[in-house]
Amino acid sequence: MTSEIDQFRAMVRSVVDTEITPHIERWEAEGTFPAHELFPKLAAHGLLGLSFAQEDGGEGAPLEYQMVLSEELGRGNAAGIAMAVNVQMHMATPSLAQFGSAELKQRYLGPAIRGEHVAAIAVTEPDAGSDVAGLSTRAVRDGDDWLITGAKTFITNATQADWFCMLVRTGDEGGYKGMSQIIVPAGLPGFEIVRKLDKLGNRSSDTAELRLDNVRVPVSNTIGEIGRGFQQQMGQFIIERLSACFSIVGGTEWALAKTRDYLRVREVFGAPLATRQYPVFKLAELTADVELLKAMNEKMCRMLNAGEDITREATVGKLHAGRTYRNVADAAMQFHGGLGYMEDSWTARFYRDARLSSIGGGADEVMLQVLARMDGYRV
Amino acid sequence: MTSEIDQFRAMVRSVVDTEITPHIERWEAEGTFPAHELFPKLAAHGLLGLSFAQEDGGEGAPLEYQMVLSEELGRGNAAGIAMAVNVQMHMATPSLAQFGSAELKQRYLGPAIRGEHVAAIAVTEPDAGSDVAGLSTRAVRDGDDWLITGAKTFITNATQADWFCMLVRTGDEGGYKGMSQIIVPAGLPGFEIVRKLDKLGNRSSDTAELRLDNVRVPVSNTIGEIGRGFQQQMGQFIIERLSACFSIVGGTEWALAKTRDYLRVREVFGAPLATRQYPVFKLAELTADVELLKAMNEKMCRMLNAGEDITREATVGKLHAGRTYRNVADAAMQFHGGLGYMEDSWTARFYRDARLSSIGGGADEVMLQVLARMDGYRV
Amino acid sequence: MTSEIDQFRAMVRSVVDTEITPHIERWEAEGTFPAHELFPKLAAHGLLGLSFAQEDGGEGAPLEYQMVLSEELGRGNAAGIAMAVNVQMHMATPSLAQFGSAELKQRYLGPAIRGEHVAAIAVTEPDAGSDVAGLSTRAVRDGDDWLITGAKTFITNATQADWFCMLVRTGDEGGYKGMSQIIVPAGLPGFEIVRKLDKLGNRSSDTAELRLDNVRVPVSNTIGEIGRGFQQQMGQFIIERLSACFSIVGGTEWALAKTRDYLRVREVFGAPLATRQYPVFKLAELTADVELLKAMNEKMCRMLNAGEDITREATVGKLHAGRTYRNVADAAMQFHGGLGYMEDSWTARFYRDARLSSIGGGADEVMLQVLARMDGYRV
Amino acid sequence: MTSEIDQFRAMVRSVVDTEITPHIERWEAEGTFPAHELFPKLAAHGLLGLSFAQEDGGEGAPLEYQMVLSEELGRGNAAGIAMAVNVQMHMATPSLAQFGSAELKQRYLGPAIRGEHVAAIAVTEPDAGSDVAGLSTRAVRDGDDWLITGAKTFITNATQADWFCMLVRTGDEGGYKGMSQIIVPAGLPGFEIVRKLDKLGNRSSDTAELRLDNVRVPVSNTIGEIGRGFQQQMGQFIIERLSACFSIVGGTEWALAKTRDYLRVREVFGAPLATRQYPVFKLAELTADVELLKAMNEKMCRMLNAGEDITREATVGKLHAGRTYRNVADAAMQFHGGLGYMEDSWTARFYRDARLSSIGGGADEVMLQVLARMDGYRV
Repeated sequence: MTSEIDQFRAMVRSVVDTEITPHIERWEAEGTFPAHELFPKLAAHGLLGLSFAQEDGGEGAPLEYQMVLSEELGRGNAAGIAMAVNVQMHMATPSLAQFGSAELKQRYLGPAIRGEHVAAIAVTEPDAGSDVAGLSTRAVRDGDDWLITGAKTFITNATQADWFCMLVRTGDEGGYKGMSQIIVPAGLPGFEIVRKLDKLGNRSSDTAELRLDNVRVPVSNTIGEIGRGFQQQMGQFIIERLSACFSIVGGTEWALAKTRDYLRVREVFGAPLATRQYPVFKLAELTADVELLKAMNEKMCRMLNAGEDITREATVGKLHAGRTYRNVADAAMQFHGGLGYMEDSWTARFYRDARLSSIGGGADEVMLQVLARMDGYRV
Repeated sequence: MTSEIDQFRAMVRSVVDTEITPHIERWEAEGTFPAHELFPKLAAHGLLGLSFAQEDGGEGAPLEYQMVLSEELGRGNAAGIAMAVNVQMHMATPSLAQFGSAELKQRYLGPAIRGEHVAAIAVTEPDAGSDVAGLSTRAVRDGDDWLITGAKTFITNATQADWFCMLVRTGDEGGYKGMSQIIVPAGLPGFEIVRKLDKLGNRSSDTAELRLDNVRVPVSNTIGEIGRGFQQQMGQFIIERLSACFSIVGGTEWALAKTRDYLRVREVFGAPLATRQYPVFKLAELTADVELLKAMNEKMCRMLNAGEDITREATVGKLHAGRTYRNVADAAMQFHGGLGYMEDSWTARFYRDARLSSIGGGADEVMLQVLARMDGYRV
Repeated sequence: MTSEIDQFRAMVRSVVDTEITPHIERWEAEGTFPAHELFPKLAAHGLLGLSFAQEDGGEGAPLEYQMVLSEELGRGNAAGIAMAVNVQMHMATPSLAQFGSAELKQRYLGPAIRGEHVAAIAVTEPDAGSDVAGLSTRAVRDGDDWLITGAKTFITNATQADWFCMLVRTGDEGGYKGMSQIIVPAGLPGFEIVRKLDKLGNRSSDTAELRLDNVRVPVSNTIGEIGRGFQQQMGQFIIERLSACFSIVGGTEWALAKTRDYLRVREVFGAPLATRQYPVFKLAELTADVELLKAMNEKMCRMLNAGEDITREATVGKLHAGRTYRNVADAAMQFHGGLGYMEDSWTARFYRDARLSSIGGGADEVMLQVLARMDGYRV
Repeated sequence: MTSEIDQFRAMVRSVVDTEITPHIERWEAEGTFPAHELFPKLAAHGLLGLSFAQEDGGEGAPLEYQMVLSEELGRGNAAGIAMAVNVQMHMATPSLAQFGSAELKQRYLGPAIRGEHVAAIAVTEPDAGSDVAGLSTRAVRDGDDWLITGAKTFITNATQADWFCMLVRTGDEGGYKGMSQIIVPAGLPGFEIVRKLDKLGNRSSDTAELRLDNVRVPVSNTIGEIGRGFQQQMGQFIIERLSACFSIVGGTEWALAKTRDYLRVREVFGAPLATRQYPVFKLAELTADVELLKAMNEKMCRMLNAGEDITREATVGKLHAGRTYRNVADAAMQFHGGLGYMEDSWTARFYRDARLSSIGGGADEVMLQVLARMDGYRV
């Protein structure tokens, strides 16, 4: 498998170098990127459906291919684009692929895999943050339709999305019960993009806040079972965490390599920084952290390929990945000194982007809580 | 002294609230602030000359007043302005006050204290970073003048400065020898502001790179002894470090208080974050770090008032202050979650600003090296 | 004051070098030391009553003298002895000095200051740990006597103590109310030393568990007000924390100096470790931590001399001191390598001793809780 | 393979529970254990030759079996015994198995696998520490014999060993060249056990210093090629690191589980510690660190089974394992409070044992250096 994967990696890298890298500066400045242009190009190489079944239009490839794709997207200081693509493949579509009806998959998953649709995931609400059980957007049944009312925020791809995989309350049970996942097409009456959000980092990715006022969607747009939305979304979050683990390997390896190169040429007090034990050992420690993440990623691939549950591993991985990403970004900036603090330096963007990693996709504290609960605590 | 100082603090806070806070959003967006408008207003309250001798136009106040001023400037999420004022008082003028001739002080220090002149310090060079001994800007004697040629970068206040306290080579000895501090007025023939720099943070403060091509300055503009510039500048750096320690107390206390307020109102999983041990203990640890810094600051005030050498204390303080500032900024963002990552949040600016603290004014690694050398190591 | 204090320090160091250092190996091996021999020798130099009033037999010296004494006791790798002396001066007697009746002071404080009595503090109970409000040892009034029943553990000096400053319940209010501090002489009927405890470190100091079964003590042995014991003990804890902060400066400075000396002679890979940035910067960081603690200690002296409340400062100081002590011990061992892991190395004892610092005298988590509560949290 | 491995694990656990756990307190007190009694019992279950070839008397099992054995040995707070067995299987014999002549293997490897011989590895010298290139023990050729003179220290199993796998200089090249691995039987003329060493931890394992004065050993006792000893030993070190990674998973999982159990029953301030976020999240972080190590261990098994080079992975693993072990030991003690500091607590022994993990088997700094050099630095 190795050499096939190596060829695949080379192909992906070439696509990234051609379709993303030359434009990233502009997209960062504009605060968005042309998803409807870029996604079809990625899809042309099969990159948006690697892990999906062939019958759904995907490639049915082993997860290692997905890992390689995410790693390569993580390179090149384009975290915003990597995130946007991850949303398309790993955050907005896995539940649909796993639980969606054949018709729903045909109408929404197929176009997403072909890059014709831009997908988004809408879970977080203005007042609920990482506390999914606290969400209050409500779908009320009206014949064969849902009428959805509420608000969602921090929605990646929102301004360009053709549809949203939205988690809403469809019952009165409260807490973890009575939620459903519903596909909500953009632009329906009552649907509004309240405002585009200006973020510290990942600026090439558009993020927005949504408001829904009695938006009418067919009940047949429900993914899987009515009332099982929370549980399905928890599963979808696992893939999101996995995906973050993959991307971060790419990003941190790239940044460590660039920093090492800089240490070799940067002379301070009469010798290159690369001869000083302090920065070199710091980079070695960070390298070790990345290697640990890689080992965990490979384990998760193996487990998922074998159909095993990776909740524990993905939670550990996400926690470690988020911190490693930030630590690498911090060291890269520190060792570049004043230059690194300038906005035209790669380190400044990397530093701003990296900070999201311990907040988005479940904050570090949520990961700790999940782990604690797996070990029987109620905290 | 306490009640006088408390009154002084109240006065400063009122000045900050009136003259800085209402404008800071705009100044941040513009990447600069009107120093020639703001400084006279501060000077009107004696705030630009607190520690300078009364005969030089200063207030001759005990250092505790300076500490209070810097703390108050550190509040209000206007780190760029605090830095600009610190340059005026603690980075560009102390050598002039201590070693300058009466005439030089009259021509440059007096106007700086009165806020008529904006001052800047020019030490760092494009290729030398924290390694002051590696600088190469050169002043060649021509009769009663110096002809100065070279480049300086990361110069705060540069685009508005009336003059620069510049460290240049005036001899051939190399290394730490043969340097002098010279006051270089802005705008002379051969003087050029190459470009204004766009920084990750401290955006309301203008920073620029300078080029000098045979700029002619009278030898009488030399501060103190010719050839003693490095040693004088080392002393001036001590005051700069002290000044950072003061400001950071203000900034971190303000941010910790705001974060505590947020934890009290932010409900997650059914209870305010303020009832969770993890974030609360994290803030307690950071509070402890700030208290340690305050104790060190008070010690430095006492020592400097008594004429003692604070090199060791200021180096320890700067190292600790820089890290504490970053840690507070990181925790503030983390506990604000997604909201904290938005650019319109106070935490995003605070996070960007704070990162400078371990790079500017001597990077953490320089502080460690200074401490190691004080204990007899050659690393 | 400086030169007097320097002379005082030299005197103390000489006493330590003569009376403690030559015996410490044996005392460590024996798990105890002869308090009734050593304490009179210390008292002969006034060292057991420095901060107590002259009318009580003390020296009435400014707190800086106490700081110097504790620092010097902290040197010499005799943490067990330093702890024993700290109990005598700062843990078992401050409440007595502040709140005790003249008669009680004459009978117990005077002999303690003269080294004739060995004193101990008895607060912790087998089931309560750091949670003082949970203690259950009970004193029931019987005419002019208390009848005390219960258990106390982790009592330093217990096997040699002439009396114990004991915190017990004298009322039914529960929680923080209805406690009193009572002086309980050793050896009364019903008083039993259940067992001597074998500790990881501080082995030269004897520690034991006590049991009391209707031990009869006059009510006049109550220190201060009946029912105010908890509050008085909280105050006594502050002095205990302060005392730990003082000692730890001495211990860590000594260990850092010894480690630095070792780095200078230890050659690895062809050069002394002292030329490697990694260990040297690590020691510089720890040196900075000690300097911060020193600044805090000096601030606390000043505040206490001025009669100010140091609860916040002592809590911060204790937290920082405990961690710094452990970090220094850890680095000292690491840089001594295999040699450092041998029990005949100074680093092994130092490492074992240092671990107590974040547990005893209020664990780190208690310090964090105190700080959090001072800032208004209920965690 | 899973169920077979599970059965194997159950068998090993039963052996440990029967043959080690009941005796460990006594062995710890005695500073040694009866290797010649225990090893044959382990060998009877095939446990001393799992990874060795069947033709050499081993089991030829996949490495996962070795991992399970080491994990189980790591449980039960008997780190000294785990270390002794690891020396027998992973530190003193791998070079012999890989490079030894058939005759040498028959005479020394076979008996070690059968538990008849106790083996030891002798590399470190009194003055060289982790710097293997600096060793000076010398073997001079005399006909068909070597005459070996020098000293070795920190030798595990030394007082009971039947033979030593010793690294000595057999040439004059200096540095990494001209060394050989030679099997030196114990008790020959000129061979002396200078002293048994008293260690901070791992006390049930005997450690000693050796002196050799013209000890005569046949040249045919040389393992592999004369002059290739350093390179062969570097390979043997890789297996040692791997082995540490395996054991530490067992030890830390055991300690985390015990600490969790304690948090559930230990009430402080009116509730079990298990309901407090601070200790629970701390344990969750450590759990995550152990999971990362497990993923790396599994990766190394897979790689070694496939004949791949694991130098990088074993180096990362050892660094991470050593730190994780220490962090777990530190947290276990902290959350047990005063009780944890008592020598009769499991936490005290665990804490003392764990400290070796970042020193022995190549100190953390050596791991960082190896990683740095793999990335092209010369530090």
